Amino acid sequence: LTDPLLASLAAIVGDAGVLVDERDTAPYARDWRGRLPGRARAVVRPASTRHVSEVVRACGRANVPIVPQGGNTGLAGGSTPDASGREVVLSLARMNRIRTVDPVDNTMTAEAGVILAHAQEAAAAHDRLFPLSLAAEGSATLGGNLATNAGGEQVLRYGSARALTLGIEVVLADGRVLDALSPLRKDNTGYDLRDLFVGSEGTLGVITAATLQLFPRPREQVTAWIGLDSAAGAVRLLSELRAALGERVSAFELISREALAQVLRHVEGTRDPLARPWPWAVLAEFGDTSAPADLRGAVERALADAIELGIVRDVALASSEAQAAALWHLRDHIPEAQTREGASIKHDISVPVSRIPELIDRAGEELLRRFPGVRLCTFGHVGDGNLHYNLSVPAGGDAGAFLAQEDTIHAVVYAHVQALGGSISAEHGIGRLKQADFLRFKDPVAVDVMRAVKRALDPQGLFNPGRVLPRD
Amino acid sequence: LTDPLLASLAAIVGDAGVLVDERDTAPYARDWRGRLPGRARAVVRPASTRHVSEVVRACGRANVPIVPQGGNTGLAGGSTPDASGREVVLSLARMNRIRTVDPVDNTMTAEAGVILAHAQEAAAAHDRLFPLSLAAEGSATLGGNLATNAGGEQVLRYGSARALTLGIEVVLADGRVLDALSPLRKDNTGYDLRDLFVGSEGTLGVITAATLQLFPRPREQVTAWIGLDSAAGAVRLLSELRAALGERVSAFELISREALAQVLRHVEGTRDPLARPWPWAVLAEFGDTSAPADLRGAVERALADAIELGIVRDVALASSEAQAAALWHLRDHIPEAQTREGASIKHDISVPVSRIPELIDRAGEELLRRFPGVRLCTFGHVGDGNLHYNLSVPAGGDAGAFLAQEDTIHAVVYAHVQALGGSISAEHGIGRLKQADFLRFKDPVAVDVMRAVKRALDPQGLFNPGRVLPRD
Repeated sequence: LTDPLLASLAAIVGDAGVLVDERDTAPYARDWRGRLPGRARAVVRPASTRHVSEVVRACGRANVPIVPQGGNTGLAGGSTPDASGREVVLSLARMNRIRTVDPVDNTMTAEAGVILAHAQEAAAAHDRLFPLSLAAEGSATLGGNLATNAGGEQVLRYGSARALTLGIEVVLADGRVLDALSPLRKDNTGYDLRDLFVGSEGTLGVITAATLQLFPRPREQVTAWIGLDSAAGAVRLLSELRAALGERVSAFELISREALAQVLRHVEGTRDPLARPWPWAVLAEFGDTSAPADLRGAVERALADAIELGIVRDVALASSEAQAAALWHLRDHIPEAQTREGASIKHDISVPVSRIPELIDRAGEELLRRFPGVRLCTFGHVGDGNLHYNLSVPAGGDAGAFLAQEDTIHAVVYAHVQALGGSISAEHGIGRLKQADFLRFKDPVAVDVMRAVKRALDPQGLFNPGRVLPRD
Repeated sequence: LTDPLLASLAAIVGDAGVLVDERDTAPYARDWRGRLPGRARAVVRPASTRHVSEVVRACGRANVPIVPQGGNTGLAGGSTPDASGREVVLSLARMNRIRTVDPVDNTMTAEAGVILAHAQEAAAAHDRLFPLSLAAEGSATLGGNLATNAGGEQVLRYGSARALTLGIEVVLADGRVLDALSPLRKDNTGYDLRDLFVGSEGTLGVITAATLQLFPRPREQVTAWIGLDSAAGAVRLLSELRAALGERVSAFELISREALAQVLRHVEGTRDPLARPWPWAVLAEFGDTSAPADLRGAVERALADAIELGIVRDVALASSEAQAAALWHLRDHIPEAQTREGASIKHDISVPVSRIPELIDRAGEELLRRFPGVRLCTFGHVGDGNLHYNLSVPAGGDAGAFLAQEDTIHAVVYAHVQALGGSISAEHGIGRLKQADFLRFKDPVAVDVMRAVKRALDPQGLFNPGRVLPRD
């Protein structure tokens, strides 16, 4: 290693911990969606918090930017280097130890590189639930989940990554370690630094470990696939089910006919859970943590009432874990099916739950009028007001022509989202891909405050420069 | 008004909105516990966010510090002026409008000066629950609740003020308004500014309004007074009850014999709910939001199991709302009874729930050994790991001599708290009263980061200077 910075990094993490050959660094330099090809000066793989601290100091001295990276499954281009070849990727993948699981206090302390699915398994091994759950859980890491405040399929009941985090360990821009790995449920000693770093997409510090909340595992679980006429019916159904079953409604996913149709077309072995096709479906999950209380009966009664009210048209209740898994399989394969279907333009938006039907009506009407034949592959976490409002190229249409309209289509969708008081990034973050729209739609006062915070905590602009906020 | 600053404030809020006579300002200058007598240069009472913004600009131009104040029920001296006579108190009391209640999206938007009890009532009028609940709710305001991240009696199930807040409106140090009054459940556009201002005790900005989460009202509620031999038994009972009843355990308050005895002595019309005196009691509340499911039967079975296991010695279940209120009356009058009992030294500490018995044993042993006769009036939210670990003067002892030992006694308690990984301020904040201990026990790296944030958002040191963090 003739590059003095890389030599000093190798002195910290060992030669095997520094990748420089482009064949080795390429997987770290490519974002999940392949939208922002990049090139890393090097990839450094620390094995401990002390390593991270020393790497940060060395890069700071050399004034070389650091791009922290976990499982590299982010959808906004926030964890890969730009094309300059200047940026060092700091991969947390080797820091994959679960330090402690405490089933008495219901906490787990784990390093940033632990894969989400492994964290779930470690909790389950102690008869506890770590509820964060998302499609990429087999490769996404806890550090990335926290850095992006990941959402997913259990937010309705348990909240996003932020709500599950009790404490964090962070390496700051000057290399110091902020050790706030607290398992405390209540602590009002000063500002809430934890929630500032969580969701800051690696721009304020490098999260190296976290203390996470665990929960009792549901003793009884019911999964239902529900056919409906309209998205408005889905919102009404959610309200009825919560009135009847309270917080036992743990997931509530809306799926348009187009989204299901693409899955049935492209994913082998799938079939429509209902006998007839309905315009909309909801995949709902119910859980109860207490001693057997006939949850299934209560769900059946609540859904029968909704059929009576004309909200629900048909229902399939899973009668085994395998059947429940098959229903989730349909939901989880929508993104893959959409990729196979052809070019797509995606939005990760949220509005107040009650405004979901209006958003679908208004945006859909304008899009279908202005872009005839475009296919609306709408699905998402309707219980959280969060839709993945995705479009597929018209059947037989030209992909290039379709994608050339991406900025216009974003503008149409985001204008409706803004008019309904919504967010242009509900769970995927800003990264690089959404920065222009973020700056267009976010309150400039909020952006100014964020810039002040960034300058205060990372005056040199060392961490993920140009992500979320533009460079100074 | 000859003082040009006060004249300019009166021009903004009207003459009636500026109090200068010491007879008028005195109630605003005295902290709840009467520990830090202060004097205000004036009290300004804005009626709108625009007023607040202009007041902040005027004070900024004159370089006069602002002390934001809600109901002035804080226990750490964070909302009253110092003795200099230089500081202007900014009272939010006139900003007491509930702007909207939305029972469909389960949100409420209310101004900072709304009294907590009024917010609860407004939610109830729409058949919804706003769960924040604490002894001072009849005079504490939402702005103060958020500024201090208030806790209280429903944290176990619903979280502290922060967890109940979806969006905020804040006047910044330069007078600009950060309008983040969002009802969204998910929004990952940039840093989490909301949680930075919540809990910052008026040192980073003035919260003028908030969008809060509402919940379905419990359909069934059970309240139990439970006699136990030990605090360890209480922690074990909590674990058993949660295994049996899940999130239906909504409050779990520990009460020592001494605390109950003081209430029975000093609060008229009270009686021990149990036939025999037990060393410890738990006041537990259970709620279920779903259709009738025999919660009472389930609670009875779970408590019978705990009696069988030898954890619980006796139980009184409230059989009416009036009986439940009488049980809470005992709990809520502990602080008042302690005041009547004589001099007291208080701690608002938290440790991991599992370490509560150790804390009680270790701190109690050392205190009783070093300060013979001291009475341990322990109570608190044990489900959150949060104890009000309070001491009363020995019976017949000298108050002055007792209080002279306050610093030593704090040091003893906080050393045990720190050894168990706890916090010296679980829910009351730092203000001025706890600053020295905060600086002694908090990670200096965390304090440095907080100072950087303070400098970035309030470079002039306009808001509540010297509170939480020392002056620069």
